[in-house]
Amino acid sequence: MPHTQQALSGYSYIAGQWQQGSSERFYGFSPVQNEPLSQAYYDISLDLVDAACERAAQTFVIYRQTSTQVRSEFLNAIADEIEALGEQLLEVTHQETNLPMARLQGERGRTINQLRAFADALAQNLAPLHISREDLADPARQPLPKPHTKLKYLPLGPVAVFGASNFPYAFSTLGGDTAAALAAGCPVVMKSHRAHPGTSELMTRAIDKAIQRCDMPAGVFSMLQGVNYDISHRLVAAPQIKAVGFTGSMGVAKALMATIQTRAEPIPFYGELGSINPQVILPEALHSKPELAEQLCASMLMGNGQFCTSPGLWLVPATGCDAFMDKVIESINTAPSDTLLTPGIVRSFAHAIESLTECKATTLVAQGARQRDFHANAHVFSCDAKAFLQTSLLHEEVFGPCALIVHYTDSVQLMAVINALEGQLTASVHGADEQNDEHQALLEALSYKVGRLIFEQMPTGVEVCPSMNHGGPFPSSTDVRSTSVGLEAMRRFMRPLCVQK
Amino acid sequence: MPHTQQALSGYSYIAGQWQQGSSERFYGFSPVQNEPLSQAYYDISLDLVDAACERAAQTFVIYRQTSTQVRSEFLNAIADEIEALGEQLLEVTHQETNLPMARLQGERGRTINQLRAFADALAQNLAPLHISREDLADPARQPLPKPHTKLKYLPLGPVAVFGASNFPYAFSTLGGDTAAALAAGCPVVMKSHRAHPGTSELMTRAIDKAIQRCDMPAGVFSMLQGVNYDISHRLVAAPQIKAVGFTGSMGVAKALMATIQTRAEPIPFYGELGSINPQVILPEALHSKPELAEQLCASMLMGNGQFCTSPGLWLVPATGCDAFMDKVIESINTAPSDTLLTPGIVRSFAHAIESLTECKATTLVAQGARQRDFHANAHVFSCDAKAFLQTSLLHEEVFGPCALIVHYTDSVQLMAVINALEGQLTASVHGADEQNDEHQALLEALSYKVGRLIFEQMPTGVEVCPSMNHGGPFPSSTDVRSTSVGLEAMRRFMRPLCVQK
Repeated sequence: MPHTQQALSGYSYIAGQWQQGSSERFYGFSPVQNEPLSQAYYDISLDLVDAACERAAQTFVIYRQTSTQVRSEFLNAIADEIEALGEQLLEVTHQETNLPMARLQGERGRTINQLRAFADALAQNLAPLHISREDLADPARQPLPKPHTKLKYLPLGPVAVFGASNFPYAFSTLGGDTAAALAAGCPVVMKSHRAHPGTSELMTRAIDKAIQRCDMPAGVFSMLQGVNYDISHRLVAAPQIKAVGFTGSMGVAKALMATIQTRAEPIPFYGELGSINPQVILPEALHSKPELAEQLCASMLMGNGQFCTSPGLWLVPATGCDAFMDKVIESINTAPSDTLLTPGIVRSFAHAIESLTECKATTLVAQGARQRDFHANAHVFSCDAKAFLQTSLLHEEVFGPCALIVHYTDSVQLMAVINALEGQLTASVHGADEQNDEHQALLEALSYKVGRLIFEQMPTGVEVCPSMNHGGPFPSSTDVRSTSVGLEAMRRFMRPLCVQK
Repeated sequence: MPHTQQALSGYSYIAGQWQQGSSERFYGFSPVQNEPLSQAYYDISLDLVDAACERAAQTFVIYRQTSTQVRSEFLNAIADEIEALGEQLLEVTHQETNLPMARLQGERGRTINQLRAFADALAQNLAPLHISREDLADPARQPLPKPHTKLKYLPLGPVAVFGASNFPYAFSTLGGDTAAALAAGCPVVMKSHRAHPGTSELMTRAIDKAIQRCDMPAGVFSMLQGVNYDISHRLVAAPQIKAVGFTGSMGVAKALMATIQTRAEPIPFYGELGSINPQVILPEALHSKPELAEQLCASMLMGNGQFCTSPGLWLVPATGCDAFMDKVIESINTAPSDTLLTPGIVRSFAHAIESLTECKATTLVAQGARQRDFHANAHVFSCDAKAFLQTSLLHEEVFGPCALIVHYTDSVQLMAVINALEGQLTASVHGADEQNDEHQALLEALSYKVGRLIFEQMPTGVEVCPSMNHGGPFPSSTDVRSTSVGLEAMRRFMRPLCVQK
């Protein structure tokens, strides 16, 4: 039985209370209509940001003492309540993001599975939730007795989470960072992304129901609406906040880091900032994988190029690639155009395409037709390896449907390109033979540039499983030591305690 | 057969070469004579700081590919070569630090054991060196096949290590951070502490021999001598450096962090900054542990109060403590005075004692005689819990032989004191009954203030074992997520990589 669809309020949610916060209004945006939506939302006041953080700190003392069983039930209840939001959630998000319904259904399923995966880990008391190391006492040891020591993990404290525009479920209100923090025992103060405020409100309704159903303390979750940058800065400066999870642009990340650096107490900042996800195509793959060009184009066009793991850089042999290039042209020429998540992203994409078009080092390989003037149409450019090595513009991420093909002449040049790469979330290698010493050296070098090294597969699609790593060397993320996906993500929000007896 | 004692050069060691670096001289200091030593040392030049970092980066590409077996042999060889330094090492360090020979022998043994413990972990390929998580493929899964994923760990890259004055072996040239970094696969650029430059030179000779014996690439280790602050700042700003290990004061740590924050790439800064290591003495302990006062005084006086885990704050019941207080007075009154590690530390100690003496909230409980004017003599002060809660001065660490007794009237007041504590490396609890709900609540609160929670034992002495944690909430350390002691210390210098097939 579907739930009654309740109108949106436009309010923030501060420790169990829906609050307007201020009279400053803002509106969602319909990318497909290219115009603002009618529902008004309200900037939360800075006083209520403080209140949310203070309630989170008070609640931490209670929430950190809940058993893993209780937290497991809570996460499962959140998952249930997301399911119970039904079609209204998908409709509101589709309107706010223009992401296809099938994609949104998939992402919702993944977000629910993620919550349930943490719930299962809690129920089974898996690492790092249990005692991970223990050394027995030896009272007879000389010259001093050896104590009994156990290493366990404690939650860090209240966590600030910033939602991403491109994954309105999986990396937003009740996405990976929120799930990991709640699983670890940390209350969450969530800053909603302005690109999907209605989605955030609905997701917050779901967790509100779960909080009530499980009799959780109200301060365990707050959600802040607003477009005033001061809200975000106030949040990360709050002394109660002990870690920040963020997915977004380098510009916003740098601004938040500057504020975090003014704090008396240093705290971890987990920023996931994007990546061009190099695709290393070895000569062998041009023969053995005739479907590769189409696969790469399809992967790059997923979500109209707005995946953080979108393949933006393809390293292709300069010779023997004619059939590959023909198939790229065919796929891209016929690709339909579509809008992007926000008008700002549309503008940035247009600007990046202009720069690449004007760049003397690049050639336009193919482009799709642009069906509306606020659409982004697919582009593939190419250049040679020397130009890539000399031109910093060509190393930058273009957020949207765009890829750059870099043609290399031999494995020495390919290695030079790999060594010149910045840090990446992922890279894929196509046609590698691990028995081949040259390939082995390329793989070794590439592994130090990425958080995930993929063989023969597309980078889009991040499996939610215990051995996943989503993160990578800077600038793909600000803290290469941790992952935002998978069970290890809990470690972001925990720290060791040795108990000695 | 003892090695021939070779004269000290005063030089730095840059990737296998001993280098004077500049004509700027400085001298070690004999705390016991209260005068400079005759051996001259030379400030390394900033160009050679750059060269050390560049060589470390070049070497990383080779060293990261060494097998765990090869690195195990290397760490064992370093341990052997420290042993082979024989008496000369102990004599030079004793002259530079005034630490007793027995203490230095113990610390040397511990430093050697630490290297061998990492060597054993490497030989056995223990976590986090091996594949820690793996998920099998499911090609038939719907709607998408499930890939095969493995989570492994890679070394971060070249690490800068700053030696501490108070542990010239265990937290200096070849101490915990260096051992952990080399074990993880990271080259080290070491900034020697000016308080023991001769010790650093001898230790560097030991690793130089091990590098040659094991045919390691020369850039795997460099050691920089100098008193010019620019050297340290140049080191942590170098783009080749991927993590910093530091043990020292808050002032220096803040200055280094400010430089690190100007880098294009954020890197981890692992600063261990000290702690007052609260001792919670429950009423029961006053009866059941008549030896407690003497134990606490002895622990506080170890190394003349210059242990990072020195018990500086004793929470003692206001009533029933007469016998305890009498024994404190007896122990402290008869404690011999001694000098501290450096003239700067002597001055800071004198200043802190003056502030505590002038503070209206405190009473001087006992002091030892000061035998020389450059000595630090033991002091114990007391105050009541209300004064402690109101006076920030009383929360600060006094580096040297000093403790503050805070008298509490009941468990409510004790809890208030615990909640007001800043982050600590350790705390001990004496007389706790874990079946007692009140005690349980105190222990729970205390565990969130510390990196190690100790039952019925003194905080001094950090066991080197897999389940140890040495670190704690800020300001005791700058990164509560990691430890500087124990096998988990390797994680400081590693990061995850997911390999997907």
